Amino acid sequence: MQAYRTLERRFARIDHVEGAKGILNWDNETIMPAGAASQREGQLSTLSVIAHELLTAPDMPELLDRAGAEDGLGGWERANLAEMRRLHAHASALPADLVERSARASLVCERAWREARQRSDFAGLLPLLVEVLRCQQETASIKGEALGIAPYDALLDRYDPGNRQALVDPVFAALEAGLPGLIAEVSEHQAGRPAPLPLTGSFPVARQRALAETMMRAVGFDAQRGRLDISTHPFCGGANDDVRITTRYDESDFTSALMGVLHETGHALYEQGRPRAWLSQPVGRDRGMTLHESQSLLIEMQACRSRAFMSFLAPRAREAFGAEGPQWEADNLYRLLTRVRPGFIRVDADEVTYPAHVLLRYDLEKRMITGDLPLTDLPGAFNDGMRRLLGLTVPDDRRGCLQDIHWPSGSWGYFPTYTLGAIAAAQLFEAACRELAGLPDCLARGDFAPLVGWLRPRVHETASREDTGRIIEQATGRGLSAEPYQRHLRRRYLEAG
Amino acid sequence: MQAYRTLERRFARIDHVEGAKGILNWDNETIMPAGAASQREGQLSTLSVIAHELLTAPDMPELLDRAGAEDGLGGWERANLAEMRRLHAHASALPADLVERSARASLVCERAWREARQRSDFAGLLPLLVEVLRCQQETASIKGEALGIAPYDALLDRYDPGNRQALVDPVFAALEAGLPGLIAEVSEHQAGRPAPLPLTGSFPVARQRALAETMMRAVGFDAQRGRLDISTHPFCGGANDDVRITTRYDESDFTSALMGVLHETGHALYEQGRPRAWLSQPVGRDRGMTLHESQSLLIEMQACRSRAFMSFLAPRAREAFGAEGPQWEADNLYRLLTRVRPGFIRVDADEVTYPAHVLLRYDLEKRMITGDLPLTDLPGAFNDGMRRLLGLTVPDDRRGCLQDIHWPSGSWGYFPTYTLGAIAAAQLFEAACRELAGLPDCLARGDFAPLVGWLRPRVHETASREDTGRIIEQATGRGLSAEPYQRHLRRRYLEAG
Repeated sequence: MQAYRTLERRFARIDHVEGAKGILNWDNETIMPAGAASQREGQLSTLSVIAHELLTAPDMPELLDRAGAEDGLGGWERANLAEMRRLHAHASALPADLVERSARASLVCERAWREARQRSDFAGLLPLLVEVLRCQQETASIKGEALGIAPYDALLDRYDPGNRQALVDPVFAALEAGLPGLIAEVSEHQAGRPAPLPLTGSFPVARQRALAETMMRAVGFDAQRGRLDISTHPFCGGANDDVRITTRYDESDFTSALMGVLHETGHALYEQGRPRAWLSQPVGRDRGMTLHESQSLLIEMQACRSRAFMSFLAPRAREAFGAEGPQWEADNLYRLLTRVRPGFIRVDADEVTYPAHVLLRYDLEKRMITGDLPLTDLPGAFNDGMRRLLGLTVPDDRRGCLQDIHWPSGSWGYFPTYTLGAIAAAQLFEAACRELAGLPDCLARGDFAPLVGWLRPRVHETASREDTGRIIEQATGRGLSAEPYQRHLRRRYLEAG
Repeated sequence: MQAYRTLERRFARIDHVEGAKGILNWDNETIMPAGAASQREGQLSTLSVIAHELLTAPDMPELLDRAGAEDGLGGWERANLAEMRRLHAHASALPADLVERSARASLVCERAWREARQRSDFAGLLPLLVEVLRCQQETASIKGEALGIAPYDALLDRYDPGNRQALVDPVFAALEAGLPGLIAEVSEHQAGRPAPLPLTGSFPVARQRALAETMMRAVGFDAQRGRLDISTHPFCGGANDDVRITTRYDESDFTSALMGVLHETGHALYEQGRPRAWLSQPVGRDRGMTLHESQSLLIEMQACRSRAFMSFLAPRAREAFGAEGPQWEADNLYRLLTRVRPGFIRVDADEVTYPAHVLLRYDLEKRMITGDLPLTDLPGAFNDGMRRLLGLTVPDDRRGCLQDIHWPSGSWGYFPTYTLGAIAAAQLFEAACRELAGLPDCLARGDFAPLVGWLRPRVHETASREDTGRIIEQATGRGLSAEPYQRHLRRRYLEAG
């Protein structure tokens, strides 16, 4: 097992470099002084180059071959070797000049996008976006060839190993069939009932933070191996044994930070639950963005926006802010946190309308990669979709196709993971409820141990040993399906409660 | 200049890796969750290995040779190439197994030392310390051979390029000749005057921090390219354009954090003043620990413990803490901050007795490296020295030879830089006062611009283009000498004020 052991040491080194990048990225977003930006860019790009060089070292193919022929590898080791091969294939598929051209195009376009979005200036951004898309098309084509899959699949595969358009299309089609009808039904249902009472007041950051930490602890965040801080764009990052989540506080509305923290806590639980013996190895990594998003949405949407959880939250929120009154009752909180309102902005969308934003982007981005949708036609196609799916007339591109960073930064293939994650979350939570009698009562007491105990062996500790489809099938008894998600939405949003 | 340009790119990469280490080290000491320690150790050690591999790459000797023969190199480029050669010589002098053995021995001994110091258990630490010393002796001998210098000089050279025992010995001898007498004189002088009034009260951290930031700003710290935070052991670290200093706050005594911040601000000014065009190159680095310490002590001891500066500090301290009374007058603050009291602990020592701690350690560590002082005799020799130099009887090794981390961590050759720095600070400040009429009046107004403006071209912007001796000579008109320091001590501590 000499070659295999050599590979393990190499990949541990790569993981250390990635961990260093994780902390530097976190630092970037939270506390770095402004004048350090350009030096930090240099540090991060050097570390990326070093990691890439380690992964594509000239002797790597031979080591991978030799390790494959060695005796004595156990199941985890074989799976680890397969992951090493996958990472190596991805990294070595692309010529260095394309990688560099692509990184530069995305960097330039992403910077210009920040301005262009504010001015709603799609035409101004267009030439830069054309170059980013061209790089992504080449990437898709070359990588697809190397991996023996279709071009768009090669882009999906970067964020979600094993994910394919052929798997996504039927699931999304099933979802899309019922969605506009469901949104109309729910809107009508909620309009026919008295509006929830608003929570007004001033909610000091320190108290919001204390409440958020109480909730994180209840859910199971291990503060010995992570932190909570502030950043403009909330995220979950950091490194092994050092999972750093962030939020931003709005002193006029504590629920946005709180639900954001619970979302990131779901991501963090996954990171903190990966198998300790394999933390620094490829097989010990998370299994991609669909499963990652399923864990954040399972905690935030399935568990922590449930009626049961509100019984735990309400008295603690009252205590945190010294508040009282009918608007602070669990029922009212529940109704506030499950309001549905079609809107233009994806990141502000509620659970029911969110998938519409993703279905639209998924459809558009597939057609951009094949070339069927020229970028000049993007604003029109985007606005048509918003009308069709949400019944909204987009007033300007700022609130239309310019709102997201994904395309300007070259991240074609990422959008579908949001809704695949929501679908997986519903399916996993439904299975957990089936197997764990009294789970809602536990959540009402803030006792997450049974739920997390159920997820640990089925999702977190499986890490990258299986692919996403298989993990979901083993945990729930069937492959990924939109049905549990649809059942969940109908139950939560159409049955009186 | 092709080879030279290749080297510049290589060294910029090394600098990025070192910058990443700087931020990770800072994070370690300030905010890292406890459970991340072992992963962080792995990240830092991987980055060290990578930096070492970049520096000792097989083609490095040839690149250095070819660059030396290239035309068109300017003065900075030539100096940069010389520094590249020096770094390469240091890095490649030692066999890899000695580097590794030595790192492990230091790590193990340093950990054991934390316990051993608490229990005052020198005998328990001895076997581990013997191994650390043995590694340092081998390092000194092999490196000295490679660099063509004496063994102990090779250790000095790591912290202070170009420093040699032959330069230190006469300066320290001159200092030592007068020191016990001076300490006795000062003690008698201060005993004969009424004691300064104590500053009692509770000084909340937030207010201490605000005062410290006011003072940092006045001195010239650029908050766009640095931060102030909290750590158990204060330091100045971080990366290019991101200079991070730390302090620890004592709510019963604000002066310790404040003077500590001013000390680290002196270090930070040096870092922030290095030449921007050469920030990522060897020639743009600081010129070693003597000059670094000279900058911190020049700000803390020469400028900010001066009577003049107290006129700026006193009203701002009163305002920060809402305090009043005679104990808050500038004169009383001055007397409080210049009290002299011989004590056992180096890091708590005042300006007059501090050199005694260093002279003792310098004498002992030279003899340990030659083997003339066996480690079994260290406690006795240490205690003899404390009696001779400070008139104190050391009660236990915790307050004796076990108090410092330097030897357990393998840092022979570091101690002299503290007092060489104090000597250089006095010499530089004396020259600045000579050339800048009205400097004390400026300090009394909190106007550091003339002083910093004087230091910038003479010290900070010279970076590693010259060696320490030459920098001091060019700035002050003579080589390093103990006389300005002795004049300073006599003036501040013996003339009534």
